[in-house]
Amino acid sequence: MIVTVTPNIALDVTYDVERLVPHASHRVAAVRSMAGGKAVNVASVLSVLGHEVTALGIVGGATGDLVRADLAARGIPHVLVDADHETRRTVTVVSLADGEATAFNEPGPAIGRHEWSGLLEALRRVLADDGGSAGVFVGSGSVPVGFPGDGYAQLVRAAREAGCRTLVDSSGAALVAALAGGPDVVKPNARELAEVTGLDDPVAGAKALQDKGARDVLVSLGPDGLALVRTDGEVVRAALRAGLAGNPTGAGDAVVAAVAHGLEVGAAPEALLTEAVAWSAAAVLQPVAGVVDQTDVARLREQVRVWRD
Amino acid sequence: MIVTVTPNIALDVTYDVERLVPHASHRVAAVRSMAGGKAVNVASVLSVLGHEVTALGIVGGATGDLVRADLAARGIPHVLVDADHETRRTVTVVSLADGEATAFNEPGPAIGRHEWSGLLEALRRVLADDGGSAGVFVGSGSVPVGFPGDGYAQLVRAAREAGCRTLVDSSGAALVAALAGGPDVVKPNARELAEVTGLDDPVAGAKALQDKGARDVLVSLGPDGLALVRTDGEVVRAALRAGLAGNPTGAGDAVVAAVAHGLEVGAAPEALLTEAVAWSAAAVLQPVAGVVDQTDVARLREQVRVWRD
Repeated sequence: MIVTVTPNIALDVTYDVERLVPHASHRVAAVRSMAGGKAVNVASVLSVLGHEVTALGIVGGATGDLVRADLAARGIPHVLVDADHETRRTVTVVSLADGEATAFNEPGPAIGRHEWSGLLEALRRVLADDGGSAGVFVGSGSVPVGFPGDGYAQLVRAAREAGCRTLVDSSGAALVAALAGGPDVVKPNARELAEVTGLDDPVAGAKALQDKGARDVLVSLGPDGLALVRTDGEVVRAALRAGLAGNPTGAGDAVVAAVAHGLEVGAAPEALLTEAVAWSAAAVLQPVAGVVDQTDVARLREQVRVWRD
Repeated sequence: MIVTVTPNIALDVTYDVERLVPHASHRVAAVRSMAGGKAVNVASVLSVLGHEVTALGIVGGATGDLVRADLAARGIPHVLVDADHETRRTVTVVSLADGEATAFNEPGPAIGRHEWSGLLEALRRVLADDGGSAGVFVGSGSVPVGFPGDGYAQLVRAAREAGCRTLVDSSGAALVAALAGGPDVVKPNARELAEVTGLDDPVAGAKALQDKGARDVLVSLGPDGLALVRTDGEVVRAALRAGLAGNPTGAGDAVVAAVAHGLEVGAAPEALLTEAVAWSAAAVLQPVAGVVDQTDVARLREQVRVWRD
């Protein structure tokens, strides 16, 4: 089984407006909301494709109830730790005139020591209940105030002790701190990697991250695909043969979902990267994050090119 | 007692961002939320100034719970009808760089026949429980989908049958339809009045509204104060002697609160307009709607000029 942990879960709300005009008052034409946060999207993609997954997180208040209800409605198995605080929201305003999106992301409330220990305990329990089968742990997204500095590292260690392969997709200080736990794979995008290493070249950046303790580093390069920099220095790349227009939101989460699945089944790098590019491209064709179409994946898989530097 | 009815209650959420940039992703620095909707603001002003008031509305879901909790925390007595649907939100993004606000107003869900009849029944019950003392009814704000076309008129009739003076502050079709109920006062602003009459001059517009059945028409003119056009054609005006910088949001609701209070105590037009301008100016000095400072009201009352055309 794959277990995803979203430290900073959210309710993602989308507002359609005719046209976004700063300093004006807008009538919202349509409101949509769904459970969000990067690891929730990862769990959603896995669930949509029929893979066994459990989404973990911390939720509270009225908005937390909406997150629970949405996960239940979407059939995504979940174990959520109760918090005293109100779960955060994100609001994305879509201007129908030009299709452009403007996002407002609430920071989220501080989580307490009790909630953090509840999350760690929930992870241990879910992995123990899984009967010791070799699973995969995915930790993904930003971390809230009150999350321990080494929180991702602790989660990774707990998962490794339970026999899991481990994958972390975060950025900034949370990404660097996660390395101490020894995750099998980290997946920064090119910008996030440059931010923490100061290096613009993805391969050089990945190697700098390995100097800080990273193992395999998978760098997502947007339309240029993926670069997997392995611990032995080998670099494997994959990309679609032709470009694809669409909505890049959630493409990175689909990459993480595919890699988690690849780790679970012991895929070779070529196969793992092929799936990751195909799932990611299928996500680009969807209007919202966390969804891919199996038919798109099958078709796009044929258009992936894999090569070594 | 004054009873306010907010057909389309909301949770008003404010997001502070560094600077609003269309098509960008924004980190929200601070999130505030409070119960909103025009008649809620009216009830809040009356409550803050120590007047007896009860706020009525329809709320549902998790957001409805937050509205209830906020009204309770602010000590505003309320009778809220339970709905199956989720109460709407408004999101106002404040750009800290320039202080400008950009608002996104959710339309709100459709209310059902059961919820509407519950609201009408709640109004009758609250007025009956008040022991037949001459009270004031205030209906204020937009109306949700599913609200009867003559909803405000029905509410006004129920209030008049209970011996209340009545006041409606709405716009468009809801304002015009309210007139059939015979409200003692309607309070459009100059723009709203022009929209329903096609006349730019406030006095001519007020008279056109009276031709459609209105009694006293109080037109709010922003910094130019108020014009009360009475059924006998008399026009009484009031304004501050000097301009005032601040936040106009909620100024109109403070006018309505003052007029409701004036109707309750049987104030003469001059006294009623003086209070209305003073409460409104005091509201301009506050960062949020629904609040005035008693000291500001006392000071500003001395700066109001009243005259007849």
